[in-house]
Formats: sequence, C-alpha cells, structure tokens
Amino acid sequence: MRDVAVIGVGMNRWGELWEKSHRQIWTEAALEAIADAGVDHVDALYVGCMSGGLFVGQEHLGALLADQLGMGPISGTRVESACASGGLAFRQAYLAVASGEHDIVLASGVEKMTDVDGGAATYALSTAADQEYECYHGITFPGLYAMMARVHMHRYGTTREQLAHVAVKNHAHGLLNPLAQFRSKITVEDVVESVMVADPLRVLDCSPITDGAAAVVIAALPLKETRKAPVKVAASAAATDTIGLHDRDDLAWLRSTEVAAAKAYARAGITPNDLSFCEVHDCFTIAEVMVIEALGLAERGKGGEAAPSGMTALGGRVPVNPSGGLKSKGHPVGATGIAQIREAVLQLRGESDGRQVKDARWGLTQNMGGTGASSVVHIFTRA
Amino acid sequence: MRDVAVIGVGMNRWGELWEKSHRQIWTEAALEAIADAGVDHVDALYVGCMSGGLFVGQEHLGALLADQLGMGPISGTRVESACASGGLAFRQAYLAVASGEHDIVLASGVEKMTDVDGGAATYALSTAADQEYECYHGITFPGLYAMMARVHMHRYGTTREQLAHVAVKNHAHGLLNPLAQFRSKITVEDVVESVMVADPLRVLDCSPITDGAAAVVIAALPLKETRKAPVKVAASAAATDTIGLHDRDDLAWLRSTEVAAAKAYARAGITPNDLSFCEVHDCFTIAEVMVIEALGLAERGKGGEAAPSGMTALGGRVPVNPSGGLKSKGHPVGATGIAQIREAVLQLRGESDGRQVKDARWGLTQNMGGTGASSVVHIFTRA
Repeated sequence: MRDVAVIGVGMNRWGELWEKSHRQIWTEAALEAIADAGVDHVDALYVGCMSGGLFVGQEHLGALLADQLGMGPISGTRVESACASGGLAFRQAYLAVASGEHDIVLASGVEKMTDVDGGAATYALSTAADQEYECYHGITFPGLYAMMARVHMHRYGTTREQLAHVAVKNHAHGLLNPLAQFRSKITVEDVVESVMVADPLRVLDCSPITDGAAAVVIAALPLKETRKAPVKVAASAAATDTIGLHDRDDLAWLRSTEVAAAKAYARAGITPNDLSFCEVHDCFTIAEVMVIEALGLAERGKGGEAAPSGMTALGGRVPVNPSGGLKSKGHPVGATGIAQIREAVLQLRGESDGRQVKDARWGLTQNMGGTGASSVVHIFTRA
Repeated sequence: MRDVAVIGVGMNRWGELWEKSHRQIWTEAALEAIADAGVDHVDALYVGCMSGGLFVGQEHLGALLADQLGMGPISGTRVESACASGGLAFRQAYLAVASGEHDIVLASGVEKMTDVDGGAATYALSTAADQEYECYHGITFPGLYAMMARVHMHRYGTTREQLAHVAVKNHAHGLLNPLAQFRSKITVEDVVESVMVADPLRVLDCSPITDGAAAVVIAALPLKETRKAPVKVAASAAATDTIGLHDRDDLAWLRSTEVAAAKAYARAGITPNDLSFCEVHDCFTIAEVMVIEALGLAERGKGGEAAPSGMTALGGRVPVNPSGGLKSKGHPVGATGIAQIREAVLQLRGESDGRQVKDARWGLTQNMGGTGASSVVHIFTRA
C-alpha cells in the first residue's frame, strides 16, 4: 500500500444553522479543504453521513455532492456507520488512495440535525442501536450510556463528579476553538445540577444536536510540493462489537475501540505513551472515560481519574479533545470523525493557536457508532 | 493493486418477504455466499443499502450485520448510493482487497421495502433524486424516467412497443431464474395495455418493490485452492452525473454510465464487442434502452431496436439481463448491484442452468442510482 497524507482541511462554524441547507453546509467545508490543500481537483469524494433520509429526506449524497462541487463525473461514495460515519468514510478514502486507485481524494462528513424536531432527531439517532431488541422497548442513547455509566460507577467506584470533570475540561478546551458550538465555561457544580436526562447522566454530560460539516483532502506520498505541511496517516483501523448492549460480556468495556486501537498502534509502531494528544468520541462524559481506558491511556477502571487529575487537559500528559470534543464543539454525527482528523492535522501542523499542544508529534483520533458497536481509529504524524 | 476474484455467491428468493426481517434476509444470503466460497471467516464486510432509516428504522448496518454473522470484531461498512448502493459497496470491498488491507471480504446488499406502505416506499425512493429541486415539486421516479423516455421517443423515434419488448424479454429470462420475484410470461400487448403510471410508462415498464439480499465473497489472487472456480474482477469503475435531470445537457443520455464503462473497458483491455453478456439496471424499460447505448452495445438513439431484434435476448448476440433483470428478478434497491454480480459469476462458472449464456467469457454489470446520477460498472472474466 502507498503512504497517504492529509494535505488540506476545512470546517465551518458548527451550531444550529437554520439559515443554511444540508448541501450548503457541506460545500463550505469541502471548498475550504480544497483551497487549503491548494489543489484544483480531486479524483473522487467520500462523505460520511448517518441518516440523510431521516434528517433531511436526502440520500444519494455521493452523487449530489460531486454535482454540488461541479466536479462530476468524479465518483462519490457515501459511507454510514452511525456516529462513526465520518471516521469510516475517511478510512475508505484512505484505502482508495493507498491502493493506487486514486491520487487525490476528498474525505468529508456532514449532518443537518435541526431541520426536524427533537423527538424526530432522537428517533433518527436511535436507528444506530438495535431496533428490534433495544429501541422497540423505548430506550434511547442517553439511557444506554446511563446503563454503561452505572456499571462503571458500581464496579470501579467512578463518581458523579469525575464524569462532570470531563465536560468541564472539554468546555474549557472548546472556549479556545472559534468553530465550536458551545463556547462557554462550565463548572462541576453546573454539570451535577443540570437537568437530569437519564440517571446518572444530566444534560451537561451529553453532546448536543448540531448542524455541521468537515472535510479533508488526502493524497499519496511522496508529494512534490504542497501548500501546507502534509500530515501522514500512520495507521487506520476499524472494528465492531455487538450492536446490542445486552450481548456484551462487559457493559463497561469498549471492545471495538480496544481492537481497532491495538491494530493501529501496531501498524504505526508506537505505544499509547508516544501519543501527544487524542481526539476521542465523548458523546457522553462516560464515553470519554471508557474510551481512554480502551486506548490504553488509563488502566481499566481508572478512566474516571484522568480528567480531575488534569492528565487529559491541555498542558497535561496527554491532552484529550483539545478541540473541545463532541461536548463543546458539537456533534453533527456524520461530520464528527472528520472534524477530529482536522483537529489532529492542525495540531501536527502547529496551527491550533490558543489550544496548540506543545511539540505535537503523534495524534490519535477515535470515532465510534452507537454504544461502541463500531469504532474507527486513526493515527497521524508529521510527514 | 492486487488482482481480486469472486469465490462465492449467495442470494435468497426475492419477493414480498413479510415473514422475514431485514437482518434475516441478509444473513441467509451472506451465509450462502460464505458456504459457497468454502471459507470459515471473512476479514471484513461491506453492505450496500439505500435507506435502512426510512424503510426499516435501522441504520448502522455494518456493525449490526457483523454481529448477526457472529463475526465481530471484523469491520463492517455500509455504503449508499441510492439504487447503486450494492455496486458501490462491491467496489469498496474490491479496493479493500486490491489494496492489501484485507484478504477475504464479504460484499453484500440488502433492502427490505415492504414493511412500509406504498406511499412511504415512494417517498423513500424519492430521496435518491434532488429533494430541493425535484421532489419538493411532487415528482417521483416514474415521472423522471417518463420524461427521459419522451425525449428519447421524440428525438430518435423510439416506440412504445420497443419499450415493451424490454419487459417481455426480461420476463422471459426471469422465467428461467428460480429466485426471481415475478416468474411470469408477458406479451407486448400485456405491457402496452397495463395500468398507466407516468405516460408513456405503464406498470409493466416498471421494476417492482422487493425485499431481498445478495452477497459475494471476494479474495486476492492467486488463490491456492477454492471450492468453486474463481471469477476475476477485470475492472471496477464508478462515475457521477448531475443529480437533477434539469441540469443535464441531454436528458436522453446516461453520461455516468458512459464514463464508468469507458474506464472499465480500458482497464479490462476489451471492447463492447468482446462481452458475452451484461447485467444492467433496467429499473424502467427506457433505462435498459439508454444503458445499452451508453455501454456501446447499440448506437446512440438505436437502443430501442435491440430487444425487438432479439440481439439482447438469451441466444442473441449479447444477452442483456439473463437473470431477468430488475423487471422480473425484482429490485430490492441496495441488493440489486450485488445480485447482478452473482449472476455474472454463475454465468462465467457455467452454473446458470436454463439461462446459461453459451461460452460466456466476459461479463459486465452496470448498476445505477437515481436517474443515472451515479453509475458503477464492473467487468468479470474467468480467472
């Protein structure tokens, strides 16, 4: 396989973008990535989107977006893996370039979630879980993650306050990200006193409903000349776990992330200790706690200690979610995995301004779908 | 890139499968393909599905189906390109093996379309068109293809009876396919007197609403030992056109199919004259007429003459849709592209029984989404 690098990135300000359409949001991010890369064409595009059908009544996004760019007849491929759609779309784009099939490819993600009401959005998101064995009984994602949190708290002594620290940290990081949806400082007290959603998870433990897009341009190495310093894709890996929580051996362990990360570390030739920073899938505060355990950044059961200790904050041993994460940056589900990669690229270029991780050398992104039924892990380094 | 072959195929009887669930239909086809290949595992799976969200309220199919097979933690990737979802999923699976990332991969497609009523199915299918510029004005796919048909008839003199011959031929072929949804002989009179849907297209010009799945197993060549003769993927290509009909230079020409086919012929090192048979996307009778022109099997404007002349029938110069095509075999949209490939493999193995094309050496499959906004073309030959 050929070596592959990210040569351009783009993203718009995320939030409730009622004045913009689905395709418009995507096009802004795509054009910015293409301009950032300094290329005049791409050979193909990939787009991660969870549910164009349920959120905006539009499937067939690969063709639509190639047309929107005015770049037809290039091929357009939409990839879906619930909230890991962006990460998995990037992986397919990576394989298309690594294989030699294409030289320059746009990998992107988009979700427009606020054109439907809250109930319809909750239903659309629930299609990431097992409809026949979970959703028919009325459970939605806050409830599923609440059960995972309860097991983690019961078994390992993880506390309500430890979870709150994850949200506090990610909001502090998001304050430094001009494109984040929620740029507001919050405290542990704010979190533990916020509205209850599914015990023990409160509204400030939950990532929001967001409209947004992100895009990156990738190309085969070696490159003659690039506008910005290329960032190498050192590893790409994906794995699955049972779709239903009830089929898991351990509700408090993310096996798909563990498996994908182990493959990625082996391929990149590094260990968790080598990482300068991570962007991980903190759809709920408990998710970040469990993810950093599965990534080997904290011992099993000890993930709750990371945020309160400052280890995962900017300036700590391994900053987690310097972008603000899903919690503060927002979570337009199909776009999240690509935005994580954009952040990794900016960090490795040294372009992250106020939230720059010092001497960033290795960055990891972890994007997952459902309650971790799918995980996608990428590792990046300076080319 | 490594050479890749199809080593196993599976498909169930298509139709209105009310007694079976979405995942059950898929699993039957997948297990048959794995058994046919004689392998005890696959390294990853890909699934084409147009709208799990709108048809059955279930997205995240890659993870769900890996779980359903009991093969987690292998990665599972869902690919969507409207009615070309199956063909495009196969292409991503092909790239994953050709690149060296995986050795044995399951490529599959599924759609369960009859769990919703006809209006909801028509709405779900309309999400393949341009929602903002086409569907909001009330048009659906029969109407879009009717406009294409009218232009073709006006400009080239294509007749109502010529269109009917496409349906008659494909039903005659489908009679020989034990898995086809509609195994019934029809006449030109039946077609031209059937219920009007969108002038000039009548109900017997239209492919049906279908539940069904299909799967194939692919592996890198050379192979030590296989249960069945491997069939080589000689070429894979995908292209796009404008999503909206109103943006086309020519309503009576399928540019995405032309572009993808030209790439595929060049890569396989053959011309249209070398083809032993084709499986093409006859979602409406006019579609087959236009596709065989874009594939170079008939001159521009002359596609209407092919079926009446017998050229595209079994026993003719180049049989088109020996399986019965979408018209008779059925059209579970995400599965169609994979079922076309299954047919090509059976033909090239010499296992097509009553519908076997004599001395089949090169077979082409053409799968498209919307009104041809996306097309995927594959060419196969004996390994």
